[in-house]
Amino acid sequence: MSEFDFIDWIRRRATDRPPVSLGIGDDAAILAPSDRLLLVTTDMLMEGTDFTFPETTPELAGRKSLAVNLSDIAAMGGIPTAAFVSVALPRSRGMSFAEAFFSGLLDLADEFGVTLAGGDTNTWDNPLVASITLLGHPAGRSAITRAGAKPGDLIFVTGELGGSIQGHHLTFTPRIQEAKQLVDLVDVHAMIDISDGLAADLHHILKASGVGAAIDAERIPLRFPSGGREPPECGVHVSGSHDQGVNAPRSAGKTSLERALSDGEDFELLFTVSPNDANILERDWPLSTRLTSVGEITSENGCRLRFPDGTVQPLPPLGWRHDL
Amino acid sequence: MSEFDFIDWIRRRATDRPPVSLGIGDDAAILAPSDRLLLVTTDMLMEGTDFTFPETTPELAGRKSLAVNLSDIAAMGGIPTAAFVSVALPRSRGMSFAEAFFSGLLDLADEFGVTLAGGDTNTWDNPLVASITLLGHPAGRSAITRAGAKPGDLIFVTGELGGSIQGHHLTFTPRIQEAKQLVDLVDVHAMIDISDGLAADLHHILKASGVGAAIDAERIPLRFPSGGREPPECGVHVSGSHDQGVNAPRSAGKTSLERALSDGEDFELLFTVSPNDANILERDWPLSTRLTSVGEITSENGCRLRFPDGTVQPLPPLGWRHDL
Repeated sequence: MSEFDFIDWIRRRATDRPPVSLGIGDDAAILAPSDRLLLVTTDMLMEGTDFTFPETTPELAGRKSLAVNLSDIAAMGGIPTAAFVSVALPRSRGMSFAEAFFSGLLDLADEFGVTLAGGDTNTWDNPLVASITLLGHPAGRSAITRAGAKPGDLIFVTGELGGSIQGHHLTFTPRIQEAKQLVDLVDVHAMIDISDGLAADLHHILKASGVGAAIDAERIPLRFPSGGREPPECGVHVSGSHDQGVNAPRSAGKTSLERALSDGEDFELLFTVSPNDANILERDWPLSTRLTSVGEITSENGCRLRFPDGTVQPLPPLGWRHDL
Repeated sequence: MSEFDFIDWIRRRATDRPPVSLGIGDDAAILAPSDRLLLVTTDMLMEGTDFTFPETTPELAGRKSLAVNLSDIAAMGGIPTAAFVSVALPRSRGMSFAEAFFSGLLDLADEFGVTLAGGDTNTWDNPLVASITLLGHPAGRSAITRAGAKPGDLIFVTGELGGSIQGHHLTFTPRIQEAKQLVDLVDVHAMIDISDGLAADLHHILKASGVGAAIDAERIPLRFPSGGREPPECGVHVSGSHDQGVNAPRSAGKTSLERALSDGEDFELLFTVSPNDANILERDWPLSTRLTSVGEITSENGCRLRFPDGTVQPLPPLGWRHDL
């Protein structure tokens, strides 16, 4: 099968939906004009960093490559519309691998009404690289950025945190529906998706908004609650350091709380709303996805972690360190 | 320097221009609404396929990564606006390599008024991959696709063709200005940029438009005119076969004409206009970039190559074969 045959296969499998008026097959895609803001996000995933084979199926690798982009659009309070998928496929894995990768990706695209509107397929003798650019528009009148958190705001997260490496990072449901519901119900002041860990991503909001925060350790929803607050035997392994090229969560030697604070790849939404809107959410939230208030925004800069026994620790950007 | 420091460096170096209202730094970029069609193209370039080091400087690799996308927007009759750049950088090459790559890219972006509005920077222990998505809008009321060529149309190319591997593929000027000028002057029926070679890309237009063509061999503008029409000693090496993952032009054993027909990576515009518009172009074309009429569109399908001595050969999609 040549590249052109494979593109024809993808083309038959993909469906052009509005706003895409011309999808795969020309020098560029054409999308209809829109009176709404345009959101654009892009993520590149690499074999060895974001997934490994054969531990991950090609279907799940394709799924994750799109899902992380969907999570970014959700974090802007957005509805996704069109995806552009470029791949460097390992020649040795053959065409069935490529088909499986795109099948996993296209199934998720269909689920969220996203059109695969273009891309670039290549083969080479190195590990898989998948780079996706995803377009969308705000569900509400404006997009929700990381800036906008106000002192007194309550801080919420969706779902549970920590230990994503055990499978969640491949199978998570991007919080598109939850973001839309939030936008419909309340005025979200600031939002981000948790990709580097709660601590690191909260700091992105704090920095962009020029505020601080206090987080209640015992309120953080844990995916794997066993382990409690026991301090680790030795120094905590801090993740979220992108300069090492490692996005994958690492859980060795961490407590459940540490995992929830620093593992990353939870792809849950972290956002702030006024106390009044917090009440509305607690009263009217219609979805089964758990919403948890984990703390509040403060005018004092920096981030503090509070424990039930009254002790308080600083929570640094790169994750929680027991001995700080 | 961490990834965050490097992103800050890029951010300081990049300038947000309309329609980008929020560029690098959040979960997605935000672009202003537009009453014009949106064009989106994407290309992934790989070390070893699209450039090699140290033969290519990182500046030229960065430049080419954006330039091929600019060429696609030009081929739609478009004006580029915003670029999203994702890279997997070889860890061993260090930060100066990354800076040089982005410097080359950003210089070209500035030249064409393009905002670097987002991306994803990664490092790994494999060759460089750069994936760019470029947005734009039509210079005129509509975009120019590959469909729309009509029997009787004259077929034009910009510039000269062949032998791009000798340097042109790294230093070419994307034909954005030429495309805009064409749209201003005439009604372009169909257009493509020559990336796979004149023969292959002409066939894309013919297939999309449901027409055929006759090309006059002696009118094809040659970058390296020496060599003439001597047949090669052995079978012609046909390029443009994307399934082998090789985009780089290969010139060994070809005549100048063969190179012009099949080398690829010329990144010149190939387009068709009515005979009347052809006269307008011949009279009023204001730019120094050469425009050459190389043949005409026919209602009979297929593509023929005509020689001054009256002989005619079929010109197959994947490039010219002397012995067909």
